Amino acid sequence: MNTEAKLIKKIARALPSSSPRSGGSGLRLGIGDDAAIIVQNRGIDWVLSCDAFLEGVHFLADMHPADSVGYKALVRAASDLAAMGATPRLFLLTLALPSERTGKWLDEFLRGMGRAARSQGMRLAGGDTTKAESISISITVLGEVSAGKAVRRSGARPGDIIYVSGKLGRAQLGLELMQRGAGGQMRFAEVVRPHLYPHIRVELGRWLAERRIASAMMDLSDGLSTDLERLTSASRVGGRIYAERIPHVTIPAGLGKFVPGINPDSLHLALHGGEDYELLFTVSAHKVRQLSRAPEFRELTAIGEITGDKRIALVRPDGKAKPLASQGWDPFRKS
Amino acid sequence: MNTEAKLIKKIARALPSSSPRSGGSGLRLGIGDDAAIIVQNRGIDWVLSCDAFLEGVHFLADMHPADSVGYKALVRAASDLAAMGATPRLFLLTLALPSERTGKWLDEFLRGMGRAARSQGMRLAGGDTTKAESISISITVLGEVSAGKAVRRSGARPGDIIYVSGKLGRAQLGLELMQRGAGGQMRFAEVVRPHLYPHIRVELGRWLAERRIASAMMDLSDGLSTDLERLTSASRVGGRIYAERIPHVTIPAGLGKFVPGINPDSLHLALHGGEDYELLFTVSAHKVRQLSRAPEFRELTAIGEITGDKRIALVRPDGKAKPLASQGWDPFRKS
Repeated sequence: MNTEAKLIKKIARALPSSSPRSGGSGLRLGIGDDAAIIVQNRGIDWVLSCDAFLEGVHFLADMHPADSVGYKALVRAASDLAAMGATPRLFLLTLALPSERTGKWLDEFLRGMGRAARSQGMRLAGGDTTKAESISISITVLGEVSAGKAVRRSGARPGDIIYVSGKLGRAQLGLELMQRGAGGQMRFAEVVRPHLYPHIRVELGRWLAERRIASAMMDLSDGLSTDLERLTSASRVGGRIYAERIPHVTIPAGLGKFVPGINPDSLHLALHGGEDYELLFTVSAHKVRQLSRAPEFRELTAIGEITGDKRIALVRPDGKAKPLASQGWDPFRKS
Repeated sequence: MNTEAKLIKKIARALPSSSPRSGGSGLRLGIGDDAAIIVQNRGIDWVLSCDAFLEGVHFLADMHPADSVGYKALVRAASDLAAMGATPRLFLLTLALPSERTGKWLDEFLRGMGRAARSQGMRLAGGDTTKAESISISITVLGEVSAGKAVRRSGARPGDIIYVSGKLGRAQLGLELMQRGAGGQMRFAEVVRPHLYPHIRVELGRWLAERRIASAMMDLSDGLSTDLERLTSASRVGGRIYAERIPHVTIPAGLGKFVPGINPDSLHLALHGGEDYELLFTVSAHKVRQLSRAPEFRELTAIGEITGDKRIALVRPDGKAKPLASQGWDPFRKS
């Protein structure tokens, strides 16, 4: 057996995957052949997305634990399915690695990815493994949604209420602690967790889609200011959000004492911090009451409303509205 | 609009893609949202595969024209679908690029990929774009096959005849000319073409699958000696092939005169050269006669037969059989 074949065996052992003999997930044939086969189910649409996760761009191999890299690579891709209201089912993994990463690093990476796959009920349907100078991960995810019920970004209408799940800016605060070398401190374990092991909102997304409650939806991957612009632009509308209503990360008391030089602004983190993987969605006014039965309802916050112009405004505590510019993450921005 | 958004626009303009308004291919929603949506069709299975194509591993940016990189990245992925007997329909593109490649290089890359997509009737269903130190391409392809008719690697039985399409070793010879700086010479344009713009066997694969002629099938991506081992191993059988019958690349007359130091052995190229993307398949003896109606029948060659032991033997012109070791391409082999 050649060394690539050995690697593929290792991957197949570590991740929930499927063989011609295993059923479920609509998958008839999984890894080990040229391609996977998906059987059609009536009443179901398949939803598909792909996501890159690259060393030096999305993570640093000497800062981020390998099991977090594996965990996060999969859930951040699956979050795109949650954002359509779909249930994640299958994934394909393209993995390029330097030879020195094929031992312990890969084992821990696969442990993290396996944990994420099991927690989401996902199975590996295929992949490609090769060597490279640096670690490069690309994941394609497939999910199922009832036919015709996937929620797009483009359905928001003037008057709809804008909601977010969770508290925003948590992942960015975690990243800033890691960058200052404080990520390993026990007292910050909970603060760093949203950055390393994000929680994604599959159940909420599915509920909003199945009942046709959300008129538009996406996940917050690059920051509210960037992603809200994407949603309103796809819907050809504008939006007005209220600074005081935006649910933001709690800055730990005395943070500056333990981490010299850090002075985070929680509103800034909430507006522009990336990688929260919370859901951003809109609901028409007459459906808002139904939201009280949503899973994780207590974690939902109305932050503003969709407007008819094509601008995005942030209303400050003093009542003054200012244009909100995209300042979220952009991999090609010159810094 | 941020710079990532501009890049995505450029990609969407260059490649055949789809919008919520375009029909066909089972695709209801294409690029521009969190994920693509595929509608189910009765009587059809979807076939899925992914493939990495990396600078410094699979191609060299200063040796390979950008439009060849784009063309080949897509067709080599689609070849995995042809190898199942499926018709390529959709693809997702993960593209990581250094900033300096987002101009002319990207335009030419997209031109090549667009040409490949149109020639195969494929449309872009999604993607992810980011920056990176070197060019990294990952492509997921989806194809359709009549329900239950996809051809796996695992169906070969003792007594089946082993076939290949085309002539083997052509891509490897093209690569060796490029590596010696002779790829740009007009007289070698045809010799280099199979390396830069491989032809894939979609029509043949589909025909073999629809009529259930092939008992096992795969595409030759890493060289016959490696890929035949994969097919026989998946089928738990062995194989015997005859050196004299293997259709091999024609070495141009006087090659050594124009390219000092080159001295290719055509049998060695045919046994171990990668990236031909020809089909390797097996046919049970009683179906061999039906093959004469296959598309591209004149380009098919019987090279040996499947055996009951688990070894692979190469029968030399003197009639002596020797074990054939995998010497094809392995990205992790230490050289």
